[in-house]
Amino acid sequence: MNNKTLKEACGLFGVFGAPKASELTYLGLYALQHRGQEGSGIVSSDGEKIYDYKGMGLVNDVFNSQEILSNLKGDRAIGHNRYSTTGSSSLVNTQPILITYKDGQLAVAHNGNLTNAFTLRSRMEKKGSIFQSTSDSEIILHLVAQSNKNALVEKITDALSQVQGAYSLLFLADNQLIAARDPKGFRPLALGRLGKAWVVASETCAFDLIGAKYVRDVYPGEILSVSSKGLKSISPFPKQKHAFCIFEFIYFARPDSKIFGENVDKIRRRLGKKLAEEKSADADIVISVPDSSNTATLGYSEGSGIKTEIGLIRNHYIGRTFIHPDQRIRDFDAKIKYNPVKGVLRNKKVVVVDDSIVRGTTSKKLVKMLKKAGAKEVHFRVSSPPIKSPCFYGIDMPTKEELIGSNKSVEQIKKHLGADSLGYLSVEGMLSTSTLTRKENFCTACFTGKYPTPIEKNTGKLVLEKR
Amino acid sequence: MNNKTLKEACGLFGVFGAPKASELTYLGLYALQHRGQEGSGIVSSDGEKIYDYKGMGLVNDVFNSQEILSNLKGDRAIGHNRYSTTGSSSLVNTQPILITYKDGQLAVAHNGNLTNAFTLRSRMEKKGSIFQSTSDSEIILHLVAQSNKNALVEKITDALSQVQGAYSLLFLADNQLIAARDPKGFRPLALGRLGKAWVVASETCAFDLIGAKYVRDVYPGEILSVSSKGLKSISPFPKQKHAFCIFEFIYFARPDSKIFGENVDKIRRRLGKKLAEEKSADADIVISVPDSSNTATLGYSEGSGIKTEIGLIRNHYIGRTFIHPDQRIRDFDAKIKYNPVKGVLRNKKVVVVDDSIVRGTTSKKLVKMLKKAGAKEVHFRVSSPPIKSPCFYGIDMPTKEELIGSNKSVEQIKKHLGADSLGYLSVEGMLSTSTLTRKENFCTACFTGKYPTPIEKNTGKLVLEKR
Amino acid sequence: MNNKTLKEACGLFGVFGAPKASELTYLGLYALQHRGQEGSGIVSSDGEKIYDYKGMGLVNDVFNSQEILSNLKGDRAIGHNRYSTTGSSSLVNTQPILITYKDGQLAVAHNGNLTNAFTLRSRMEKKGSIFQSTSDSEIILHLVAQSNKNALVEKITDALSQVQGAYSLLFLADNQLIAARDPKGFRPLALGRLGKAWVVASETCAFDLIGAKYVRDVYPGEILSVSSKGLKSISPFPKQKHAFCIFEFIYFARPDSKIFGENVDKIRRRLGKKLAEEKSADADIVISVPDSSNTATLGYSEGSGIKTEIGLIRNHYIGRTFIHPDQRIRDFDAKIKYNPVKGVLRNKKVVVVDDSIVRGTTSKKLVKMLKKAGAKEVHFRVSSPPIKSPCFYGIDMPTKEELIGSNKSVEQIKKHLGADSLGYLSVEGMLSTSTLTRKENFCTACFTGKYPTPIEKNTGKLVLEKR
Amino acid sequence: MNNKTLKEACGLFGVFGAPKASELTYLGLYALQHRGQEGSGIVSSDGEKIYDYKGMGLVNDVFNSQEILSNLKGDRAIGHNRYSTTGSSSLVNTQPILITYKDGQLAVAHNGNLTNAFTLRSRMEKKGSIFQSTSDSEIILHLVAQSNKNALVEKITDALSQVQGAYSLLFLADNQLIAARDPKGFRPLALGRLGKAWVVASETCAFDLIGAKYVRDVYPGEILSVSSKGLKSISPFPKQKHAFCIFEFIYFARPDSKIFGENVDKIRRRLGKKLAEEKSADADIVISVPDSSNTATLGYSEGSGIKTEIGLIRNHYIGRTFIHPDQRIRDFDAKIKYNPVKGVLRNKKVVVVDDSIVRGTTSKKLVKMLKKAGAKEVHFRVSSPPIKSPCFYGIDMPTKEELIGSNKSVEQIKKHLGADSLGYLSVEGMLSTSTLTRKENFCTACFTGKYPTPIEKNTGKLVLEKR
Repeated sequence: MNNKTLKEACGLFGVFGAPKASELTYLGLYALQHRGQEGSGIVSSDGEKIYDYKGMGLVNDVFNSQEILSNLKGDRAIGHNRYSTTGSSSLVNTQPILITYKDGQLAVAHNGNLTNAFTLRSRMEKKGSIFQSTSDSEIILHLVAQSNKNALVEKITDALSQVQGAYSLLFLADNQLIAARDPKGFRPLALGRLGKAWVVASETCAFDLIGAKYVRDVYPGEILSVSSKGLKSISPFPKQKHAFCIFEFIYFARPDSKIFGENVDKIRRRLGKKLAEEKSADADIVISVPDSSNTATLGYSEGSGIKTEIGLIRNHYIGRTFIHPDQRIRDFDAKIKYNPVKGVLRNKKVVVVDDSIVRGTTSKKLVKMLKKAGAKEVHFRVSSPPIKSPCFYGIDMPTKEELIGSNKSVEQIKKHLGADSLGYLSVEGMLSTSTLTRKENFCTACFTGKYPTPIEKNTGKLVLEKR
Repeated sequence: MNNKTLKEACGLFGVFGAPKASELTYLGLYALQHRGQEGSGIVSSDGEKIYDYKGMGLVNDVFNSQEILSNLKGDRAIGHNRYSTTGSSSLVNTQPILITYKDGQLAVAHNGNLTNAFTLRSRMEKKGSIFQSTSDSEIILHLVAQSNKNALVEKITDALSQVQGAYSLLFLADNQLIAARDPKGFRPLALGRLGKAWVVASETCAFDLIGAKYVRDVYPGEILSVSSKGLKSISPFPKQKHAFCIFEFIYFARPDSKIFGENVDKIRRRLGKKLAEEKSADADIVISVPDSSNTATLGYSEGSGIKTEIGLIRNHYIGRTFIHPDQRIRDFDAKIKYNPVKGVLRNKKVVVVDDSIVRGTTSKKLVKMLKKAGAKEVHFRVSSPPIKSPCFYGIDMPTKEELIGSNKSVEQIKKHLGADSLGYLSVEGMLSTSTLTRKENFCTACFTGKYPTPIEKNTGKLVLEKR
Repeated sequence: MNNKTLKEACGLFGVFGAPKASELTYLGLYALQHRGQEGSGIVSSDGEKIYDYKGMGLVNDVFNSQEILSNLKGDRAIGHNRYSTTGSSSLVNTQPILITYKDGQLAVAHNGNLTNAFTLRSRMEKKGSIFQSTSDSEIILHLVAQSNKNALVEKITDALSQVQGAYSLLFLADNQLIAARDPKGFRPLALGRLGKAWVVASETCAFDLIGAKYVRDVYPGEILSVSSKGLKSISPFPKQKHAFCIFEFIYFARPDSKIFGENVDKIRRRLGKKLAEEKSADADIVISVPDSSNTATLGYSEGSGIKTEIGLIRNHYIGRTFIHPDQRIRDFDAKIKYNPVKGVLRNKKVVVVDDSIVRGTTSKKLVKMLKKAGAKEVHFRVSSPPIKSPCFYGIDMPTKEELIGSNKSVEQIKKHLGADSLGYLSVEGMLSTSTLTRKENFCTACFTGKYPTPIEKNTGKLVLEKR
Repeated sequence: MNNKTLKEACGLFGVFGAPKASELTYLGLYALQHRGQEGSGIVSSDGEKIYDYKGMGLVNDVFNSQEILSNLKGDRAIGHNRYSTTGSSSLVNTQPILITYKDGQLAVAHNGNLTNAFTLRSRMEKKGSIFQSTSDSEIILHLVAQSNKNALVEKITDALSQVQGAYSLLFLADNQLIAARDPKGFRPLALGRLGKAWVVASETCAFDLIGAKYVRDVYPGEILSVSSKGLKSISPFPKQKHAFCIFEFIYFARPDSKIFGENVDKIRRRLGKKLAEEKSADADIVISVPDSSNTATLGYSEGSGIKTEIGLIRNHYIGRTFIHPDQRIRDFDAKIKYNPVKGVLRNKKVVVVDDSIVRGTTSKKLVKMLKKAGAKEVHFRVSSPPIKSPCFYGIDMPTKEELIGSNKSVEQIKKHLGADSLGYLSVEGMLSTSTLTRKENFCTACFTGKYPTPIEKNTGKLVLEKR
């Protein structure tokens, strides 16, 4: 899958009660780097003052001196990794967003997307509100500030009762850290413990790096507040059917993480195995598109009995500043990322497993690349169903028009890719890989078009229209 | 005067109707660099979209590639230079501030300071407003967005009718540029013409660089809107007695600028001449503290008949990253900026002219430096009266407690500095240098404590309290 | 294997006869990034002038603007990636080295290490020569400049007849590019064709990216000159038994490259398979230490029948500026690179395949990490024999004292690592994986201590002693 | 004078016997920044090891972290500021040059230019020497290394006995610092004391900053060695008539420095006064081209009785990255540096004093600028004679063809500039300003064409021919 066409909507990390909280947050964000590479920020507090630092680029590029972290004082902090968008000056969209309102200062970091943002924002603008970012996260802060409730948790409850859609949220005030997750639980959010401190993160891999222990997920609909008095949990919203994002399993989450109560790598391996059962292939070898489909490829190999080979090498040194050569090097953007291993491919019937196909552009180049490297046949297998509908819950997908799965039949896509065969996993097959008792726990909207919440007319167009 | 203790509150530049407006704005900001060195920003528009770019540092450091300027498309733009404050992460305070509100996008750049900011902000916060910066400029945007008026000019009028204090403002929407100046005219703002385009700038030196012609000042209390239909001027507020900041003449403005209808260098020379008349000295030579008192020194020389010499050399290479040596070099911060010319000073009775004394720290070091270099006597002369009260109209001064002129008599200051004599210009002498018919046109609050507007209890504390 | 303890001695790329040669060289160096990450440089020529640019860091960091490449004019160029050393100011050691001598300008890029450098350098210094770098490559340039021969190829032949050890070399003068390889062929060097242009590279993966075709290796002992008159080959030195570096197969070369006439990935897979035959294990799963042992792990799985799993996730975002946390996070340097996949490991008997063990530090941490993640047993398998002796042919290894394989028995190492069993591949097993007819073609000195050339007393100490 | 056409050949600083020698050297280089802005370097030693760091840019840009200075350990160090040349990759020419030779490591920093460099270099190249820079300083190191003498001072004496031309030199070995100055004393070099440590610098302003005391000049022809045993001085060369560069007084040296036994500012003031006597003008005001002619302007004012005004404001914020606007702003490069003060100039007959005219390009733009600002008449006065011949002793001047004084009569130049009158100081007038007893002590070659040494045919062409 081409990272350039599909992006995750951010990584969150928070800690309360540990010395040098900003250092831990830095490490947590580093472990969550795969969830967002455009910008990074940390807001910390020592109980009296609030400190913040944000910047564009990888965590390591933003926090590039010990001094920056030392200035982020205190034993509590939240941090955020942001996904990449176009526009050189989008620092304003980097999170956490820190505001001053009647009760003092408040920071928020958000993973997800609101589906009634347009309505809420229009209503607020009509009343005279101003917005400095294009993010829907700012709306939540307005709602909190406008709430007539007293305590911060109540204000947040009040605010969240008005929003719809997907949100995993971390708030930081000087005296408390609050974590919240929407009632459908679209995005993951895990709670952990590091000594006496509490930690919260989008994925458990952030806990592993700092040596924290996974306790449980923040529950869908739960609002968890951590202060010097300890942890308090409320679940103020009516229970709803869950809608865990199945795409987290398929692509986004790191395989060493546990999300939604399951090990990502296990699901991912089962996806590959199930794919092999559903869409077998007469082939000599099976290869992955590294690294995102590595685990599914092992599953396909196990399921099919076809041996795994490493047929594509991924170059990990690609930076932000790559200079595109003037001269015509065909399919340069695919070549700069992947190189085929000719000795492995020559005269072989090859199954190549990818996790998904978005626009099909890179997939097409990969097939061409494999064939040119000597593959006799290329059987493309995808460990998820065709993506037919955009996500409105926090994944930055192209429009329906650009989604190849929305506009072409599988046969047509096969021809487009130039593959000898093409096989997608079925929706049922995909859902069968989870051990969760009720499979309707998952949001499969991008594959099925069945959105678990009403979608406002203008959802997702906020960015396009306003800027 | 030590730049580190007294800072100007920003430089403004705007243009409407010229191709590559952002390039002109870049040049204008460069010419206004002396009004703010911490950060810089430009917002431009091509009539459809709004583009923005901001960063920390000098204009040249922020806009360090042609690409950045090329991305700021359109024939209209506004820009802002910000003065230096503490805190590494104050990018959020860099201007222009760009917001989205019910009518679309709006950017503002502000020079000055509101004196009822605290009240306005508290009132807004009570209603649920949020603030992302610590600047009072954000308040103005809230007021504009909350206005029930229809046209943008009306909304701005509505907003400005609620604020008190000092403001020279530039607004940019996609279809117009609006310049406004408070009814007392604290801060300068000039209107110019470049071919068919209109330009606006804090000082006329910005016009010179781009070859624009000075037309007139934006009048105190005037709101000027420029659109494709041309220039429109309204003066919706009741006339008030003017209160031009006399400190602009004494220190801030470039001597090659014309502000408040007068050539800065002429006033500055007269200040020196008047000082010589009032506070003569039995001396061999008169020297300046370069570069800010160069012109006043010439005036002093003319008035006193004592010949001018260059007795202090200023090092212009000081950058932001100067590494303070670990070892004890006495009075390092003064030495790194100034070096005495021993051959000039040795065995001489020296008059040293400075434009003002704020805390007295650097002045004391200078006297010591001059004596060590061989000066037989050092007669300190200041081309302005003692600074006794902080400014609430846009100059970032220390508190009253830190102002040496507020706490010590002239005799005590003389002793503190170690000078053989000390002479300040009188308030009357200072005012006599202007050719403006009514001398009460000037704000002299920092010298006299007579503030031309009511000052709210918490004015100027916004920053300290909130962050 | 811990990248921090074992480093490759550089990547080379050259091209003659293609427009924008520096762009191609940039791409070639990018594909060879794995052979050296500390610094990078390109020297180009348009037939009249010579242009050069060098810097510290990754290829993308050094060549970070189109302008830099555009300034490197001409249709011929050579480039070099350098491995990482200590010392902040080692730019002087970055290559290509460009000199002026009696015939004009000459640049050289070198992969390898001379074993009589100390003698040569001492002899030259006695005669009054000066050295600006600590690299032995500078010696070669001195020898060329001191040669009494006429043509450049002859001078180079003359020079190389005096040096011993390992060298793959690229020279660039304004009118020709010369490639040379030592008679034993320690380091790889491949010749390719891109349209009418000739290209040379350390590994064929550089050809793939630019679409060049592999023609053949530069032969051991061959000196190849490319000019506007075409290609000329001479082999002026007596034939010697080859001594291809087997460590290139084990670790350094990219699996998608062909070196020494063989596909790297095939050898690597066979190493794993052979290891499985020699050192079986009673285990549930086999995992790799990504990414260097991925292919060998597949081989082990094939050979043993134990299924492959992904048990360690590697973080690819590690940059040069990583801030080491102040607080005690145990085994931080291993954790920051690898995270175990608990779901895969829990209660499993695990074979972990690594390509080599140098100091054993990281291996020990990995075993601990795997056990902590729940592995019931950890069986460490190494797809090469114990490293017992340092390399004097271009690989930057620790001293004999620091090599764990030199000081401990396999049983002792097992205990040190805390593994349940430890198995190395035998030397015979390793050599059996090559299809080359004569197995004594390989240099196995690091495993066997049998150096294929005499080693001067001070070889490899040049750097240590002189700087 | 336009800084872009005339550049100084470097600043030197050295210290022996003071803790944190590199910090002092950093400060010394900072004070000497005006002598070279392209690159900067420091080599230090703790008596055992040698440490070095070099980079492109201002001293503050190169040494931009405390860590860099901390790594330059020891109580002895030398540093160098380099002037600006073309070519992006001239880091290789940055000094000090550090080499290894038979006796260990040796660093050199050089101010000046050898006049037999071409012969020496050709002779060395014929013998097989290689050169990595285009600087003649490398030649000196070759000669030292090739010397058969024993002690380093003897080797250096041996080397310098073979070179001709201008050199002020600092050498650093681990156990000593050696300063040397050519027998004619072209370039300045001063000796000072800081507590028990010895310091050496191109100009005394470097001593002032660190609080060191000026002791005396390093004598022409002297070789001074400083070691733990103290100071030793030898003067091994036959006495020669001195040839102090008079251009140091006219332009290069800082006015607060003492060089060649005289205060720079005093000479500079006398130059202006003498100019007034020789080339009077019927004018209202006299202005300087800041800052280089400020002092001469005071002298002109004193001599003529015409009052000084500040008629041009110089912008000190120009950085290296200034983006030249695409659109046609006439005479942009002059405008970006200078802005006329209209109020001062309008309807005035103006004398403008500049220190020299090189190509005349900037002078012409200045005249135009002054007239456009309202000056009724512009009388151009130059405080030195017409520059007719290039310098071969260390000042980077344009060729004879480009020197306007070499190709046009004063009348023609006046017309070219568009000035109402033009007056240069006479050679005799210039020489009369020195109090040194024998006026033939000065090199006036650039004004008179009388070179005090033989000039080899190819002198100064080294750079042009070789690169």
